[in-house]
Amino acid sequence: MTNKVHEFPFSIAYADTDAGGIVYHARYVEIAERARMKWMMDTTPQNGDIGFVIKKLSVQYIKPLRLADDFVIETRLAKLGSASLEVEQKFVKDNEIYAILHGIAAYIGADMKPKRIPENIIKILK
Amino acid sequence: MTNKVHEFPFSIAYADTDAGGIVYHARYVEIAERARMKWMMDTTPQNGDIGFVIKKLSVQYIKPLRLADDFVIETRLAKLGSASLEVEQKFVKDNEIYAILHGIAAYIGADMKPKRIPENIIKILK
Amino acid sequence: MTNKVHEFPFSIAYADTDAGGIVYHARYVEIAERARMKWMMDTTPQNGDIGFVIKKLSVQYIKPLRLADDFVIETRLAKLGSASLEVEQKFVKDNEIYAILHGIAAYIGADMKPKRIPENIIKILK
Amino acid sequence: MTNKVHEFPFSIAYADTDAGGIVYHARYVEIAERARMKWMMDTTPQNGDIGFVIKKLSVQYIKPLRLADDFVIETRLAKLGSASLEVEQKFVKDNEIYAILHGIAAYIGADMKPKRIPENIIKILK
Repeated sequence: MTNKVHEFPFSIAYADTDAGGIVYHARYVEIAERARMKWMMDTTPQNGDIGFVIKKLSVQYIKPLRLADDFVIETRLAKLGSASLEVEQKFVKDNEIYAILHGIAAYIGADMKPKRIPENIIKILK
Repeated sequence: MTNKVHEFPFSIAYADTDAGGIVYHARYVEIAERARMKWMMDTTPQNGDIGFVIKKLSVQYIKPLRLADDFVIETRLAKLGSASLEVEQKFVKDNEIYAILHGIAAYIGADMKPKRIPENIIKILK
Repeated sequence: MTNKVHEFPFSIAYADTDAGGIVYHARYVEIAERARMKWMMDTTPQNGDIGFVIKKLSVQYIKPLRLADDFVIETRLAKLGSASLEVEQKFVKDNEIYAILHGIAAYIGADMKPKRIPENIIKILK
Repeated sequence: MTNKVHEFPFSIAYADTDAGGIVYHARYVEIAERARMKWMMDTTPQNGDIGFVIKKLSVQYIKPLRLADDFVIETRLAKLGSASLEVEQKFVKDNEIYAILHGIAAYIGADMKPKRIPENIIKILK
């Protein structure tokens, strides 16, 4: 839908690794949230709503990231609905993809209920 | 493939929650790993291999778990291949499903490379 | 002040470990919170207050816990003030102490402000 | 011992917060490790040793950090011994200190045993 890609650099610390010597698989989900958080802070105005909340996600692990790796998460809007969106996030190091995450997020209002995405946010995301 | 279900009880602490007042979405992936770890410890003998490593996973968030919730993770082998398996894990509280995780894991040997699942482990899992 | 010890069993999963092959040092702080949470749920009634919030903590790492270790956290009230308490938590496996945590927690009311610990909770903790 | 301060900027995501609406107390320990990791990567050469491993730490929580807060961790070498060091880390936002961590770390060789800090690392840290 759009070709705009948001880039979020990150570095692996001991906190992210496990006894297998690689980044712990659940950490990709967490680091992806950091990237989406920054993406949202950089693009959409705060308006009192809760905002986008993940309803479904999938992760494909291609190559393991390791301690002290520096990499970038590329976040891209894959689909924009009236009340939800789909996001694709790639973990990229030296032009290689290490993992891909897809998430579907519903827009949640201040009352904790799903609602249509406000027009001004639709415009920005487009 | 089998109807055996492994049950793992767990309680939500502050560690698992986020500022939205609910369990943080990446934590489901982590708590599911605790349940699989216990399942493996309870069923399969240690043999020097690394064992099953997640290659793909997906999570569907149905209802949010919250602070101090007591629940059970039901882990079930969904499919057993010669070198990988598929697992289904349900987060269940008071007979209601809060989240479902599907994972595909490859069997990894001591040399960090994928290999066929040893016969004795196949037999136990079946 | 009291000799009562609350015991909380726990098992180490990959989630808790790091690339050094041992339990990640910040995880002790998190697992200790799980133990205090259970201790509080088991002993003190919910009353609408936030409850005890950690203001200071220290951890002494004696021996590293590792993947698949089963152990117990022994939680003991070390000191009870009128608006705060001091707690000591030992990580014990096979009668050996692996780590000791000391925490000082202030009692916080529903308005997010420190207040005196209610009489009924003082009585229970004593 | 030295006045050199290493600065590490960080932003709070949902991952770091808890249901109390603030940054989870164990996360300060984890974020501090990220800062030390970067400090070490920036200053000391990799030599095959494990490096510095935390033996004792204490945290003082002064003011809570919250979702979306941007802040800096100031890391300073407080003391340098022949086989260990003491580090002080301040969480600073808008010139205010939110938390202070003190850590004592032993130097660990490739054989997982404590040893004297190599001369070239001593020189750099001084």
